Order: sequence, then structure tokens, then C-alpha cells
Amino acid sequence: MSKKPLILVTNDDGINAPGIRTLIHVMNTIGEVVVVAPNSPQSGMGHAITLDSTLYVEKIIIDEGPQTEYSCSGTPADCVKLAIREKLTRKPDLCVSGINHGSNSSINVIYSGTMSAAIEAGIEGIPAIGFSLLDYAWSANFEHTKAFLKTIAENVLKNGLPQGIVLNVNIPNLAKNEIKGIKICRQARANWVEEFDKRKTPQGKDYYWLTGKFVNLDGGEDTDEWALEHGYVSVVPTQFDLTAHHYLKNLNDWNLND
Amino acid sequence: MSKKPLILVTNDDGINAPGIRTLIHVMNTIGEVVVVAPNSPQSGMGHAITLDSTLYVEKIIIDEGPQTEYSCSGTPADCVKLAIREKLTRKPDLCVSGINHGSNSSINVIYSGTMSAAIEAGIEGIPAIGFSLLDYAWSANFEHTKAFLKTIAENVLKNGLPQGIVLNVNIPNLAKNEIKGIKICRQARANWVEEFDKRKTPQGKDYYWLTGKFVNLDGGEDTDEWALEHGYVSVVPTQFDLTAHHYLKNLNDWNLND
Repeated sequence: MSKKPLILVTNDDGINAPGIRTLIHVMNTIGEVVVVAPNSPQSGMGHAITLDSTLYVEKIIIDEGPQTEYSCSGTPADCVKLAIREKLTRKPDLCVSGINHGSNSSINVIYSGTMSAAIEAGIEGIPAIGFSLLDYAWSANFEHTKAFLKTIAENVLKNGLPQGIVLNVNIPNLAKNEIKGIKICRQARANWVEEFDKRKTPQGKDYYWLTGKFVNLDGGEDTDEWALEHGYVSVVPTQFDLTAHHYLKNLNDWNLND
Repeated sequence: MSKKPLILVTNDDGINAPGIRTLIHVMNTIGEVVVVAPNSPQSGMGHAITLDSTLYVEKIIIDEGPQTEYSCSGTPADCVKLAIREKLTRKPDLCVSGINHGSNSSINVIYSGTMSAAIEAGIEGIPAIGFSLLDYAWSANFEHTKAFLKTIAENVLKNGLPQGIVLNVNIPNLAKNEIKGIKICRQARANWVEEFDKRKTPQGKDYYWLTGKFVNLDGGEDTDEWALEHGYVSVVPTQFDLTAHHYLKNLNDWNLND
């Protein structure tokens, strides 16, 4: 009998979040699961790493499952680094991050702690997937995501992913029978139009809360936003070579050394 | 006489860092400068944004220059968002971030607060550049960077940049006459091999410091690492559409809906 695949699970909402508990539950049906996840929510952390403070990692038991779990004081990227260097005895066959409570589609990938963990694993040459559900609520219903998590994770284990590519998977907040299927997509050109909510402290000093609304500027029908709006699970192959290769020649034409 | 270009300046080492003071000094010779920068160092923050705490912005005077300056409690990305929505009366013609004390070449772009500010401006449709010097010291000598900052900033103002692309500029830590020129490059395939320095608290609890060494896995002579090692200033056109477009077809062949 072949050895079960080793699966590293992490997230950015914290090790107690219902999203990661669902993900662990499904991964237990596929392989041997080790969890190294933040001990508190880290949303909006982007690809932060902890350079100037200490990191703690503690073995904990949260439920009755067969997985091994560690709670970490760092960011999602820290968790992946620590898992690989300090906690795992061999290189994992897969790293899955999530399920994020809320969308990481289109430009959200840039701000996403969930995806930063997947990218960190990708940098280490580990096939990796970030999963997100389009529901920000802590009490979100993850039941309908299970079949998709399993299908996509099993396919990544079977097919592998090339060096430099991880998957960004977003799942609509719909009943299972309303989801039309899985769609391979490109990242939509979209952004947030921030509105700062300006207030005064009781002492009279101005301060701000960051708020905003999401604007999809992309009319394409091959984007993650289109897929999600039309009832599909979106899968975007995501790379961390950020070079705009198509623009190298134009920049050379600037003749910056003249 | 044409209006002077409006230049937004920010960084991730904090508004008092010698790197940003040099950048402000040079930008004052090109345009009207507004600075909105973190009130304390934010290195390693990646593309973090502040969602769950309050933001403060204060007008301050640091030196005798003509620039207007604001110190902000948030991350580099927060600074750019706040500048655009709350502090600037018109859209800036250019956003420059840095000069970072230390490299943001190759994979470092992923962890870089300096580049996250430039990318945030790029998302807003503002031509943007992140500048970094390959010297981590607070007392780094920035004198030789000045001519390069001016040349590259003036060229971006003259030529513009297409939507979706910002520049990642790294400058070797060499005497001016040892620098061979400016080279347009792609991001090298490189990574950090972390080594966690494991210690015990006085109370006997394990903790870690993140350390590591940088490994360039890329033999190409068209990369930023090659350029920097050979005495060139590297300029990488950097995009925030992370889609691995070339891999869309392969993923479709997985037939995830079967």
C-alpha cells in the first residue's frame, strides 16, 4: 500500500476558525494532516513575515481528528516557514490554506494572508492551494464546499503543479445544487474604492477606519469575478514571478543609460 | 509654464529613515512633493492593510524642504490609500516609495512593504516606482543613488507606465563610478532558506527567531540578481495580475467537472 500523502494545512483566520476546521476534516479523508496555523486572526496581513519579534509554536489538540496540530504566534507565511523547517519530518506533498472567511478573488489576492501562505509553500516547491468562501461571517456554512475541496486537492496531488504556480480557489456562497461547476479563470481587473470613515477620539483627535467598496472594472467572461457571479467555483493559476515580461522591450526602448 | 508634477512619496522604513529623506530631496527637484509615510518601521509587512484598528495621520515638519509631510500610523499600503482619498487634492502624477534600506530584488518583492506601496499606487492607476539600496544599515550612504532616482523618475513622468505595471528598482551598494549603468531585468528565481534560531525564554519556553540565507537558483543573465551582482542598477517591470496565463489551458485539461 502506498504511503498516504502528507498535507500541511494553514490559514489566516486562526486555528479555531470554522473554515480551517472544515478544511482539516476534508484533508483527513485524503492524507496525513499536519496543521500549523496562526493562534489569532491575521486577515489583511498580505505576505507579512515576522522579522523583529519572537515566534512561538505550541502543539495543541482542538478536536478528536487524526491530524497533528500546532498553533503559532506568527503570520500565515511564518506558519509555512516554521512548519517546513521545524515541524515536518519530510516535505509535504500538498499545502492547503483556508478556507478563508471571505473572498480572495481578483485583486484581493494581493492583500490575502490565505494566499500568502499558499505562495510561501509554492516558493518552497510544494504544490499549494488557497481556498476561500464568499462569506465573511464566522458562522458561514462550509458544508457545500467539501466536495470541491476534495476534488481540487486530489487533482493537484494527481497532476502536480509546475514550479512557480499555486491555485487560488474561490467558492460562491450558494446552496450546493445552485453551483454550476468549477471554472478555470484569470484574475479580474478590479479594485477597492476606499472610503475612510473619519471620526474623532473622545479627546478630539481625528482618526480613520478603512472601509470601501469593491469595483469590478473587467468586462471579460473568463475572469474569476464573472465565474463567481455566475455560480461557478473559480480556480486561478497564480504565480509569484511578478515580472511583466511583455513590457521588458518597451522599457529597453527608454534608453535609460543615454 | 506647465504645472509641476505632483509626486507622492512613501516608504516602509518610516518617515524619519535616511532613505526616504534622500528620496524627498531628489523629488523636490522634479515636482511638488507630498509625503505620507509610516510613523515607524514596517519592514516585512508585505501588502498588509489595516482593517481592524484605527489609523492616525498627522501633518508634521521634519526638515526645511518645500514638501508637505504627513506621518501615518498604518502600513505603506494604508499610507497610499489615505494619501489618495484624504490628503491629496488631485491624483498624483507619480508615486515613489523608498529608498528602502536593503534589497527588494527577486523574491523579496513578495515580502516588501516598499513595493506594496508602489503596487497600491499602481492599482489606483498612478505611475509608481519602488527604490531600494542594497544596504540594510540605517547609516547607509545614499549619495550615489540620487542621479539614478532622478533619471528613472523623470523617464516615468515622460513616458508613463501602462495600467497594471510598476517599476521595482534596486541599486547596488557601490561607489558611483563603480556602477555600470541601468539594466532592465526580469525577477530572478531565488528564495530564502530559512533557519530558525531556536531559544528558550528565561521561563523555559521555546521560541524562535526567523533568520536565513538568500539563494539565487537562477543562472540567467537577464535577471535582477545578475545585474546587481555585476554592478548595474536593476529595473524590473512588476505586475499585480498574478494569473499564470500560460497555464490556463493545462488546468482546463484536468477536467475538474468530470
